[in-house]
Amino acid sequence: MSKLRINAFTLSLDGYGAGPDQDLQNPLGVGGQSLHKWVFGTRTFRKMVLGQDGGTTDTNETFAARSFENIGAWILGRNMFAPTRGKWLDDSWKGWWGDNPPYHVPVFVLTHHERAPIIMEGGTTFYFVTGGIHSALEQARAAANGKDVRVGGGVATIRQYLEERLIDEMHLAISPVLLGTGESLFAGLDMPKLGYQCTEQVATELATHVMIERA
Amino acid sequence: MSKLRINAFTLSLDGYGAGPDQDLQNPLGVGGQSLHKWVFGTRTFRKMVLGQDGGTTDTNETFAARSFENIGAWILGRNMFAPTRGKWLDDSWKGWWGDNPPYHVPVFVLTHHERAPIIMEGGTTFYFVTGGIHSALEQARAAANGKDVRVGGGVATIRQYLEERLIDEMHLAISPVLLGTGESLFAGLDMPKLGYQCTEQVATELATHVMIERA
Repeated sequence: MSKLRINAFTLSLDGYGAGPDQDLQNPLGVGGQSLHKWVFGTRTFRKMVLGQDGGTTDTNETFAARSFENIGAWILGRNMFAPTRGKWLDDSWKGWWGDNPPYHVPVFVLTHHERAPIIMEGGTTFYFVTGGIHSALEQARAAANGKDVRVGGGVATIRQYLEERLIDEMHLAISPVLLGTGESLFAGLDMPKLGYQCTEQVATELATHVMIERA
Repeated sequence: MSKLRINAFTLSLDGYGAGPDQDLQNPLGVGGQSLHKWVFGTRTFRKMVLGQDGGTTDTNETFAARSFENIGAWILGRNMFAPTRGKWLDDSWKGWWGDNPPYHVPVFVLTHHERAPIIMEGGTTFYFVTGGIHSALEQARAAANGKDVRVGGGVATIRQYLEERLIDEMHLAISPVLLGTGESLFAGLDMPKLGYQCTEQVATELATHVMIERA
C-alpha cells in the first residue's frame, strides 16, 4: 500500500529542524546549512540536486538514495516553497530550485493563498492546496498512483501529520550541531502515545540516522 | 584546572533525560530504563555499579570509563537522591544505591531540606546543600581537591548550571528511544548563545555519543 513517508529530515542535537531567521539568504535559517552536511557529499544529492557525478557511497548515501525511492508525490509546507508572504504573492516566484526542481513528480504545497499550478521542467508540477493537510494528502495519494507520498517538511507540517497519526515511517538524520532556537520537532508531541517507536539506528560521523515507524 | 563536567547523561531522541512518572519503582521514569541500555553492558558499569567482572570494551565502554576518570566530587539534584518529599524527610533513606554507592567521593545533593551528612561505605559521603547551585559548586570544588566535579543530573540541575555557563564539558548519549514526555534538556535553552558547541560525535548501535564544550 502507498505509504506516507518522511525521509532525510534533519534535526540538530537540540531538536530543531531549521535554524532561526529563515530568509532568502538562509532558506534553512541561520546555522541550518551546517545541519545538512551529511547529505551534501552523497551521490544522490549530487545527482538529484546538483546534476553532478560522483559522491559518497556510504551509509549517508544509502539513506539519501532511499529518500527518493518509490516516491510518487510530495507534500510541502508553505515555508518550504517560499520564504515570505511577499514571495507568495509574486507569481514570478517558482520555488528555491530553479527551472528543473529535484522532485520530478507532482508536489502539493500547503498554503492559504490560491495560486494556479506551475508546470516546471523535468516532471515537477507545483499544486497549491488551500484545503488543509487532509486535502493535500488525498490529492497527493491520487497523483502518486500507488507509489508513496513524501512530506518534505517543514517542522510544522510534519507535526500536523504526526498528530493525525498519518505518517507511516519517518527517517530522521540527527546532526552533531546545536542550533539553540528554531522549530522543535518533538516538543509537546507524545510520539509513543501516537503509536510511534524508533525501529532502526545507524550512525556516521556526520549524522545519526533513525527510522521511526507507527506500530 | 578543575572542570565542571557532565558525563554519560542519556537523552531520548525526543530530548528527554528521564521518562514521566518517576517513582520508587521507576527511578528513571516510565521507559527511562530503556534509555540506558548502552551503559548496562559496559565493563565500567558492571564493575562500578554492579561490582561484577566482564563487560564490553567498545566505544560505549570508552565513554563509560571516561565518565569516572578524575572525578573528585559529584553534584546531584534532589530527584537523583530521593523520589519523593516523604523520602526526603525520612532519615532512613540513604539514596538508591545501597550501602556502598558507586561514587567513592563526596557527593553534594541540592535540596531545600537541611539534613546531616551521611557517611557511606567506600568513600562516598552525601552532603546536603540548601544554598543553591553556586554554593554546591564551591563546596564540591573544595572537596574535589583539584580534580573535576561531575554534575550527575537531573535535567533541571544540569539546565541551571548550563544557564550560568558553568559547565565546561558535557558528554551526552542519545539513545534510539522515544519517551514522549518528561523533562526536556534543551527546550528554551539557547546553547550556542550560551557559548556551547558540539565538538565530537561517535556512535554505536545503542547510542550516539556527543561531546559539547564551552568555547
